[in-house]
Amino acid sequence: MTNVVLPASGDDRLDRQLAFVLEIDRLKEVLRRSRRINDQSLENTAEHSWHLVIMAMVLREHWPQTLDLGRVLQMVAVHDLVEIDAGDTFVYDIDGAKDKVARERAAADRIYGLLPDDQAAQLRDLWEEFEARSSPEACFAGALDRLMPLLHNFCGNGRVWRDNGVVAHQVRSLNEAAFEGADTLRRFVFELIDVAVERGYLSE
Amino acid sequence: MTNVVLPASGDDRLDRQLAFVLEIDRLKEVLRRSRRINDQSLENTAEHSWHLVIMAMVLREHWPQTLDLGRVLQMVAVHDLVEIDAGDTFVYDIDGAKDKVARERAAADRIYGLLPDDQAAQLRDLWEEFEARSSPEACFAGALDRLMPLLHNFCGNGRVWRDNGVVAHQVRSLNEAAFEGADTLRRFVFELIDVAVERGYLSE
Repeated sequence: MTNVVLPASGDDRLDRQLAFVLEIDRLKEVLRRSRRINDQSLENTAEHSWHLVIMAMVLREHWPQTLDLGRVLQMVAVHDLVEIDAGDTFVYDIDGAKDKVARERAAADRIYGLLPDDQAAQLRDLWEEFEARSSPEACFAGALDRLMPLLHNFCGNGRVWRDNGVVAHQVRSLNEAAFEGADTLRRFVFELIDVAVERGYLSE
Repeated sequence: MTNVVLPASGDDRLDRQLAFVLEIDRLKEVLRRSRRINDQSLENTAEHSWHLVIMAMVLREHWPQTLDLGRVLQMVAVHDLVEIDAGDTFVYDIDGAKDKVARERAAADRIYGLLPDDQAAQLRDLWEEFEARSSPEACFAGALDRLMPLLHNFCGNGRVWRDNGVVAHQVRSLNEAAFEGADTLRRFVFELIDVAVERGYLSE
């Protein structure tokens, strides 16, 4: 928990909102497995979340359903906030996946709980919707959350796949359902995986 | 310019959109003057932009005008993209301010120009609107862009102000117009500056 106390504003809602705003600063310290394209340093979850916001803005025309873009943007902005407490669980990490749900729920209780109750419920619902892929917005957000690491790993000549012992059938299987109905994106994703294998970035 | 070429998707719009998505990865390498709260390392502009997205989501009730939140989120997500080429100009840097407009316009031409023309125009318009503070959304986004560094500098016991020779009247003057009509936020901001002076974080 971030240890700074701001002067009270005299407005209880604002005090709680600002406590939340300060607390989430720590997402900038959570490192992912993906590497930035240019300098190949590990990216953090805050900058990853920002990247998905812009991807959603520019790629939405490729999604088959009508989307409420504002909801997508809110959803991707908060989709990994729980990692402040629960850490980033690599998508191919079978052991880490075992207690991921419990760890992330406890994190959501604490982090969203900093906000006024109505906002805590609203943001947490967005996160639950994302996790459950229970709306077109959540499915689109989930697809972007698959696409970006694929682009990153391809741009890094497959280093992250090799370093973590990930092979092609795992990548294909992870992406199998994510782009359902989004034919242009889906075709591109599976072509990218094939090219990655051809170039030796990824083993069959 | 990022040097990676993806396989062509067969869809010219998607190719351009993905080139843009890869290019903006570099915003993660642009360091600001502000420091993260917990580890006091310099934050980068991508994570700063993400932070403003969430601030906009949770603080909008304090803004006096009705806001289109979706537009605010898009605006703050792109508001500093030009820094990929133009770098971060410290808000108190008088020399840097002299050619800031020209540097940032050239950057906008190149970076937004990677997108399909309609999207390039749309995102660039959002950035111009932000720069000109020409709508309630832009004024709110601008206020958040003032508030967050203030919170960061306060939480770092004023180190960034001291390291850069910034004194209280500069901070007051910069924030004078930004919170017009948003009384709760404005009161809090000026109280925060006073407390910063009392505690010796900021010199009069």
